[in-house]
Amino acid sequence: MYESFNPANPDYKSAVHALFHRAGFIQALGIQLKDVGPGWCETTLTLEPRHLQQDGFAHAGLVATMADHTSGAASGSLIAANEMILTVEYKINLLRPGVGESLFSRAEVIRAGKRIIVTESAVFANRGNEQKLIAKGIFTLSVLPK
Amino acid sequence: MYESFNPANPDYKSAVHALFHRAGFIQALGIQLKDVGPGWCETTLTLEPRHLQQDGFAHAGLVATMADHTSGAASGSLIAANEMILTVEYKINLLRPGVGESLFSRAEVIRAGKRIIVTESAVFANRGNEQKLIAKGIFTLSVLPK
Amino acid sequence: MYESFNPANPDYKSAVHALFHRAGFIQALGIQLKDVGPGWCETTLTLEPRHLQQDGFAHAGLVATMADHTSGAASGSLIAANEMILTVEYKINLLRPGVGESLFSRAEVIRAGKRIIVTESAVFANRGNEQKLIAKGIFTLSVLPK
Amino acid sequence: MYESFNPANPDYKSAVHALFHRAGFIQALGIQLKDVGPGWCETTLTLEPRHLQQDGFAHAGLVATMADHTSGAASGSLIAANEMILTVEYKINLLRPGVGESLFSRAEVIRAGKRIIVTESAVFANRGNEQKLIAKGIFTLSVLPK
Repeated sequence: MYESFNPANPDYKSAVHALFHRAGFIQALGIQLKDVGPGWCETTLTLEPRHLQQDGFAHAGLVATMADHTSGAASGSLIAANEMILTVEYKINLLRPGVGESLFSRAEVIRAGKRIIVTESAVFANRGNEQKLIAKGIFTLSVLPK
Repeated sequence: MYESFNPANPDYKSAVHALFHRAGFIQALGIQLKDVGPGWCETTLTLEPRHLQQDGFAHAGLVATMADHTSGAASGSLIAANEMILTVEYKINLLRPGVGESLFSRAEVIRAGKRIIVTESAVFANRGNEQKLIAKGIFTLSVLPK
Repeated sequence: MYESFNPANPDYKSAVHALFHRAGFIQALGIQLKDVGPGWCETTLTLEPRHLQQDGFAHAGLVATMADHTSGAASGSLIAANEMILTVEYKINLLRPGVGESLFSRAEVIRAGKRIIVTESAVFANRGNEQKLIAKGIFTLSVLPK
Repeated sequence: MYESFNPANPDYKSAVHALFHRAGFIQALGIQLKDVGPGWCETTLTLEPRHLQQDGFAHAGLVATMADHTSGAASGSLIAANEMILTVEYKINLLRPGVGESLFSRAEVIRAGKRIIVTESAVFANRGNEQKLIAKGIFTLSVLPK
């Protein structure tokens, strides 16, 4: 990480947990919060046939959803209790086909402005004992009053 | 569209239909092929609670998945029967919160190289009689032997 | 363009002209304002050897600079006299090698929020009587008090 | 860096030097090669008024040009003597206004395929004794026969 951050909300861990429990899409897909700290977050997902594209790889949209939500949660760890996060835009490179038993994602805040937060998010595929980087993205998020 | 395209596969419509039927993630989400022609594709999705993020809007990952798969299908309309498409990377801007009964996406190829295809994809939300542009992205796809 | 816009500054044309005259980098490169209206802008550049990369094509950085500044000017046409524009981020695809006598760029605002403006920008190369699309990008800009 | 790389060209350092000497745009701007190794490159630039935008900051186009060319050189360190590199696309976030005496950029390859190389590139501004991250981007480059 490029700098260290102080969360504006002392109860930020509960706030980030809520970003997972209250998001129907994330619940439906099965993406789980693994760990969170000030300015970073980690998530996991067990891959199932319903997550794949036509050639048997994790769908680019699934991989990006995981990277995006993990970025939102990393950003959410820094905001005040009366603020919320919306994704403004992102770019993601799918570096290798996503093949394996599960995915792991880690997002880190690289710039925390008052109105705009920028993160980097990486997604890895776990296959047997091997972990491979399959995607990397940069995300721009907006901090808004709730 | 910036130019007109000739599909390499005369049976490209069946090939594009298969991109939807054979993709578990797209089937699970409920994204449907609406129409396809040489270098373009249109899709629709009826919004449900399982598609939303924590504040009740269509999840950015869902919107991007729709834009991505529609781009893949627009690209898939141009390739030979023994080729396949993989997303190399994309960038998407979420322009407005996705609120409404359904989403509509249209993707258009803006450059069809032998190895790389580039598309633009837009996503609209339908709410009552109103249709609003909620996202716009640029996608880079790779053409590979099957 | 997806919608029509009303400039907040009645004298927006002068304000946009100043974005060119007062930018040392744009002056040094020779990028010229061709035309501007509410939410759009067009620029031109005569190509010289000092604009090229190692293989004789217009440098990607030059093409992107032109697309970026034209986007900034399209955005600048909409803001108040006491506001300024900064590029938050952008993504650009270099679709074809930039070869020819001159470049032409057109940027259009696709979303004008109070704090964030999003544009699309295209760059074309003119060679003899032919004009080819060589780059397309999406730009996110921030509206700030001066 | 995520992995270590073996250059295909034993004389890769000369090849990368040529990417700077033979690029008119890079020479004209004053961007200098600082160091290069397998899969990475570092460059520097002394800031002058001709590099700035209308508010006195390093122009986004300049910052991106530096990040792009440094990415091209990092990629160029890995290719064969009869191959060349073209930028397919990139995305860059301008994290802070570029203010200071000089810029420093470091690019690292994060995925080296046979046809496509992906890099990350960071740009820092040096002001007095302080160095600040001002931009971060992801670049997709194409490996082509010369």
